[in-house]
Amino acid sequence: MPLDDQTPGQKPGEARQFKVVGTRPLRPDGIDKVTGRARFGADMSAPGMLIGRVLRSPHAHARIRSIDASKAEALEGVKAVVTRADFGAGDDDVADILDNCMAGEKALYDGHAVAAVAATSAAIARKALKLIDVDYETLPHVVDVDAAMKPDAPVLHEGLSDETVPDGVSQNVVHRVEFGHGDVEAGFAKADKVLERSFKTAATHQGYIEPHACLATMGTDGIADLWVCTQGHYMVRNTCAAILGIDQGKLRVTASEIGGGFGGKTTVFLEPVALALSRKANRPVKMTMTREEVLRATGPTSSTSIDVKIGMNKDGKITAASADLRYQGGAYQGSPADMGSMTAFAPYDLENVKTVGWDVVTNRPKAAAYRAPGAPMAAFAVESVVDELAKGFGLDPLDVRLKNAAREGTKSSYGPTFPAIGLEATLQAAKDHPHWKAPLGPNQGRGVACGFWFNFGGDTCVSLNITPDGTVTLSEGNPDIGGSRASMSMMAAEELGIPYDQVRTVIADTGALGQNEVTDGSRVTFAVGLATIKAARNAKKVLCERAAMVWGIDPEAVEWADGCARPAGDNAGKFPPMSLKEIAAIASNTGGPVAGHFEVNAEGAGVSFATHMVDTEVDPETGAVKVVRYTVFQDAGKAVHPAYVEGQFQGGAVQGIGWALNEEYIYGEDGRLQNPGFLDYRIPVASDLPMIDTVILEIPNPGHPYGVRGVGETSIVPPLAAIANSVSEAAGVRMTDLPMSPPKVLAAIQNG
Amino acid sequence: MPLDDQTPGQKPGEARQFKVVGTRPLRPDGIDKVTGRARFGADMSAPGMLIGRVLRSPHAHARIRSIDASKAEALEGVKAVVTRADFGAGDDDVADILDNCMAGEKALYDGHAVAAVAATSAAIARKALKLIDVDYETLPHVVDVDAAMKPDAPVLHEGLSDETVPDGVSQNVVHRVEFGHGDVEAGFAKADKVLERSFKTAATHQGYIEPHACLATMGTDGIADLWVCTQGHYMVRNTCAAILGIDQGKLRVTASEIGGGFGGKTTVFLEPVALALSRKANRPVKMTMTREEVLRATGPTSSTSIDVKIGMNKDGKITAASADLRYQGGAYQGSPADMGSMTAFAPYDLENVKTVGWDVVTNRPKAAAYRAPGAPMAAFAVESVVDELAKGFGLDPLDVRLKNAAREGTKSSYGPTFPAIGLEATLQAAKDHPHWKAPLGPNQGRGVACGFWFNFGGDTCVSLNITPDGTVTLSEGNPDIGGSRASMSMMAAEELGIPYDQVRTVIADTGALGQNEVTDGSRVTFAVGLATIKAARNAKKVLCERAAMVWGIDPEAVEWADGCARPAGDNAGKFPPMSLKEIAAIASNTGGPVAGHFEVNAEGAGVSFATHMVDTEVDPETGAVKVVRYTVFQDAGKAVHPAYVEGQFQGGAVQGIGWALNEEYIYGEDGRLQNPGFLDYRIPVASDLPMIDTVILEIPNPGHPYGVRGVGETSIVPPLAAIANSVSEAAGVRMTDLPMSPPKVLAAIQNG
Repeated sequence: MPLDDQTPGQKPGEARQFKVVGTRPLRPDGIDKVTGRARFGADMSAPGMLIGRVLRSPHAHARIRSIDASKAEALEGVKAVVTRADFGAGDDDVADILDNCMAGEKALYDGHAVAAVAATSAAIARKALKLIDVDYETLPHVVDVDAAMKPDAPVLHEGLSDETVPDGVSQNVVHRVEFGHGDVEAGFAKADKVLERSFKTAATHQGYIEPHACLATMGTDGIADLWVCTQGHYMVRNTCAAILGIDQGKLRVTASEIGGGFGGKTTVFLEPVALALSRKANRPVKMTMTREEVLRATGPTSSTSIDVKIGMNKDGKITAASADLRYQGGAYQGSPADMGSMTAFAPYDLENVKTVGWDVVTNRPKAAAYRAPGAPMAAFAVESVVDELAKGFGLDPLDVRLKNAAREGTKSSYGPTFPAIGLEATLQAAKDHPHWKAPLGPNQGRGVACGFWFNFGGDTCVSLNITPDGTVTLSEGNPDIGGSRASMSMMAAEELGIPYDQVRTVIADTGALGQNEVTDGSRVTFAVGLATIKAARNAKKVLCERAAMVWGIDPEAVEWADGCARPAGDNAGKFPPMSLKEIAAIASNTGGPVAGHFEVNAEGAGVSFATHMVDTEVDPETGAVKVVRYTVFQDAGKAVHPAYVEGQFQGGAVQGIGWALNEEYIYGEDGRLQNPGFLDYRIPVASDLPMIDTVILEIPNPGHPYGVRGVGETSIVPPLAAIANSVSEAAGVRMTDLPMSPPKVLAAIQNG
Repeated sequence: MPLDDQTPGQKPGEARQFKVVGTRPLRPDGIDKVTGRARFGADMSAPGMLIGRVLRSPHAHARIRSIDASKAEALEGVKAVVTRADFGAGDDDVADILDNCMAGEKALYDGHAVAAVAATSAAIARKALKLIDVDYETLPHVVDVDAAMKPDAPVLHEGLSDETVPDGVSQNVVHRVEFGHGDVEAGFAKADKVLERSFKTAATHQGYIEPHACLATMGTDGIADLWVCTQGHYMVRNTCAAILGIDQGKLRVTASEIGGGFGGKTTVFLEPVALALSRKANRPVKMTMTREEVLRATGPTSSTSIDVKIGMNKDGKITAASADLRYQGGAYQGSPADMGSMTAFAPYDLENVKTVGWDVVTNRPKAAAYRAPGAPMAAFAVESVVDELAKGFGLDPLDVRLKNAAREGTKSSYGPTFPAIGLEATLQAAKDHPHWKAPLGPNQGRGVACGFWFNFGGDTCVSLNITPDGTVTLSEGNPDIGGSRASMSMMAAEELGIPYDQVRTVIADTGALGQNEVTDGSRVTFAVGLATIKAARNAKKVLCERAAMVWGIDPEAVEWADGCARPAGDNAGKFPPMSLKEIAAIASNTGGPVAGHFEVNAEGAGVSFATHMVDTEVDPETGAVKVVRYTVFQDAGKAVHPAYVEGQFQGGAVQGIGWALNEEYIYGEDGRLQNPGFLDYRIPVASDLPMIDTVILEIPNPGHPYGVRGVGETSIVPPLAAIANSVSEAAGVRMTDLPMSPPKVLAAIQNG
């Protein structure tokens, strides 16, 4: 029974022909979301449910001398108050996460949780918070990464630096990483020009529409259930179990529909607190954050400070490149300094390259993943310098990138040698696109930049079950943040040879499937897709066996093609084909229900590259930057559902525009966040934006049966630099400090 | 890797030694149910949810000339009204079910649904029902089975009788079945005595605590979700999909916790209506029944009229036996006449036996399954006649039953030849029990009776997943009505060699597993248990492979014992054993998560027998019958969790006591139910009952790896006859008309 990656009848070397993959069926969650029927984190209720609320630190840095909750506990309607004392010592692996969810000895940032209550109404819960008396000893604070690294900076945690950290810097520096190869000093010496520039980027928030929310129930027997808005309910299960000291198997977590995550929902905030409150009150507890809480206490990305130095010959060839990248990760270790350092020069084929990354803690909320964590700021710095060098030599910036582009066989700046990759294809497509030649108006400029993201694989489980009427239910364990229900249904339908609408994909709870990595790293379409295809192939094997049983022939003499089992080889044509529906109808009489399962730690995720092209117009009187045209060129490997792929390309570009032009965490002298709301923290809205045009390239990933690569993250990597490069042309000023907000651009023009 | 049914080290022929199976761990749902946290059918809500209510016929039989819902539709807050016109023609297989859920041309019984509304509140919905104008033409009705069979009876459906039905009876007779072997007339001719008696039993309701309830959401795209209290959410899915004309895969059904079913929740009532309302309103719709609706419109059991004729020699040997069993199945075909006829003489090894069963429709709610459907009434009739004959000859009724008992090799009265069975063991245990010799007080009598139930197998799917910390989540697709979460966790733990509390079993929704037959026929502990054991063995195979990978040896050279993979054969002792937790910890690095799955149409369910012994005391002045002592002797095959098994034994006995003494549907001359409430429909309560003692016998079922037989139903089969036999001794009157309510017993005493 041949079940390889070939289309039936396909010759070796020929591209596989798809019937369902590559089309654009209606999204399965569309009607639910449009009509309001989709159930998000706050949309679950339970009888007897309490409302939980969190008391948060008003100080950027303070020792908690004591907490007196007795008045709150005495309030009518209050069923439980928890503080850090209600959590055990916890597993070492989750110590920081626990401390971030509920402060221990110190409050480490404005908004840090210090206590929580569960009460019979939100009003009582809010009232109870005011009755909790916390005795704080305020401490000096630091929120800027460069300031935090200084030897005399206020220290958040004593003795946190590891052996990678050299002497002479603050203990706020947690870890130092280094990547590269060759001899950068020798390379710089050979360059016609060496340019060194310094950059800063602001912390930005993922800005998902839906605030964090969950409904927890936990009994005194330790058996618990959690409904939660998350990017990874298995992660929630494992983390909460470790924090609460229970077995993973005892906690069943169901993921709600999700109103955006972008990396920000790859960890826990409220969930262990809600469980602890429920355990104490022995009642279900629902918790939802306000927008202010989301902005003050959940993970924004790191702010950074980056130095880049590149040597280039006048023909555009880069001789050497180095970068020093300083990421502040908020109050705990774990900034994406490592990933930022790895991605910085990934688009280039360099003989001499070195990156050094620094993970630094500050009195800010713990940084969470945000779409290609660490990469956009690194690309901003690197691509700005490449652009400045290219323009300095009068070279076409696309030609310079093509000349230096990483390709199959390139030893990457972070180590591995690349297999087939799509960077050159995106650059060539950009060069050939009408956008590149289109005329510009007054005060307009055009910029380009490249970007890279790894893409992940990881633990993945899929079950595919065939109903008696021959339709298919597919269970995946990853919340659908970018269309995975559609793409899994499509891949299952493709593999089984049935129409797309015969498959319904659902997100199973943690009781129903084995471990699934978080929906992150653009891993899902690749890894869950791989598992879906393999599960479908396992089901086809059973389907062929059932047909063989009916026909009385060897199962090996049956093949699956075009949605039917067919006798093959010597038996070809001896029996009429049996469709999936026909076999499903007799499944019970031929052994039982037909299913296919697959569990895997998926390897072979294909790296992804993009080139972005943007035209901006700068108002010389106000410094306001308007994006007037934008085109994304990105390699999808294989676009399973092109409309979703385009959506990912567009969404990443738009978020990047926000980072580039408007978004920033603004802290006061007191270390408190001054703009915790969407009126003051300004995300681009539709009226700020042009149509984001997209060009999908398809350079198959050899690690996936259909060639799929992740597409969700690379698209946020180039925009910051592309816009800066465009602004430099439009306004004649090189912006190195994000966001390029009107006052800064105006000042640059006036000083420039 | 030996994975057979032997205990490691067990010698052939030795009984398997269990570590977990046979113990009595705490029930996993106990705390949830005691604290009110368990979520039943009515405990789910959704934003924007509407409340649905049903308009029901006030007539026992009426043509529906027209329905005018315009005033209801115009009422503020009413979002949808549905009548039969809102359902398609429907699949033929579900035509009766649809008609029962929503009447078509005729209302066929008091309480038959004729329309339904969905409104923004229950008050508005109730008000809207009053605004629906139904034009009825009332028709003559019939509710008694014997009356319904008469040629001149009012006819419910024209032309319903099939080819099995002889001329000369009403078209209300749907179907006639016949079972048996030998020559009963010749057998009767050889008997010392032939006794023929006629019996009647009343319709009784399953009396579950929780009324039917569901929450439905269905979009215009046909994608639907249903939360429902049911014994079989796959059945709900398939039935509703057929009624609504959608693919099974498009409807995801989640089973709530269930507050009793006893067979009454093995079909649909509200569910298709709620989905149709939701589809029309495009809003979630919640529906719950009142107790009155439950009693008027959901399935009670059949009332019956039965003639039994038995020939016996004076030594107690039965020479021949026949029965004519007439079951009224309510308004549609499908009474358990067939199963009743098959079970009637199943406890006996008979040379000459014949049963004829009649399926008859009447103007009553469609009969639903009720614990051992059809068997208790048949056993009541047969075991009463056996008792009367035995006593007539002065014989010990247990000895008579032992003399005639079916045993391994008996050709059963319904066809198959029995494998190893436990009837004799229950009779012998009864004979040996102190209860049998205990003295009786004044006005007391002692009765015994036997009972039989087939037990089912059927389509079953299980997934077992191992979490990274080495605990286990097990998914089954059958609502837990009798402890299946505990017993599945125990069987998985037994098989894996880990503690019970390391396994959490959950009831998966229909999206997560393949087809599972309804939780009925006492099938679950057998069939799901079988699948659980096989799934665990599949997981052990993977666990051994992972250990082999670590050790660098052939997987076939690894065996699983006592919760660890161990090198076996030539490699024995070469490596320290690896526990499940150790392998789970490295699962991700050795290929991915570890799981075991199993799909099967389970065959080999072991039949089950019981003998009940009861002492009653009859008040000669009032006719009130009090049960003073009760002992159940039943074969469990293997009691996985003896406390649950005892609960099943006790529960069946108690329900049987209700049938015997109090419970009945009382119809007025108008054909309307006069006692639709628990004040007038009298179920035994704790104060009515003595402790029900239980004796578990264990005659292993050869069709199950651990010998398990179903235990849930047989226990309701003997009580009716056992009590009647006891009453005949206590009061000197032979009661043949159930229930033996005080007025009837008093009249019998006074007339007798």
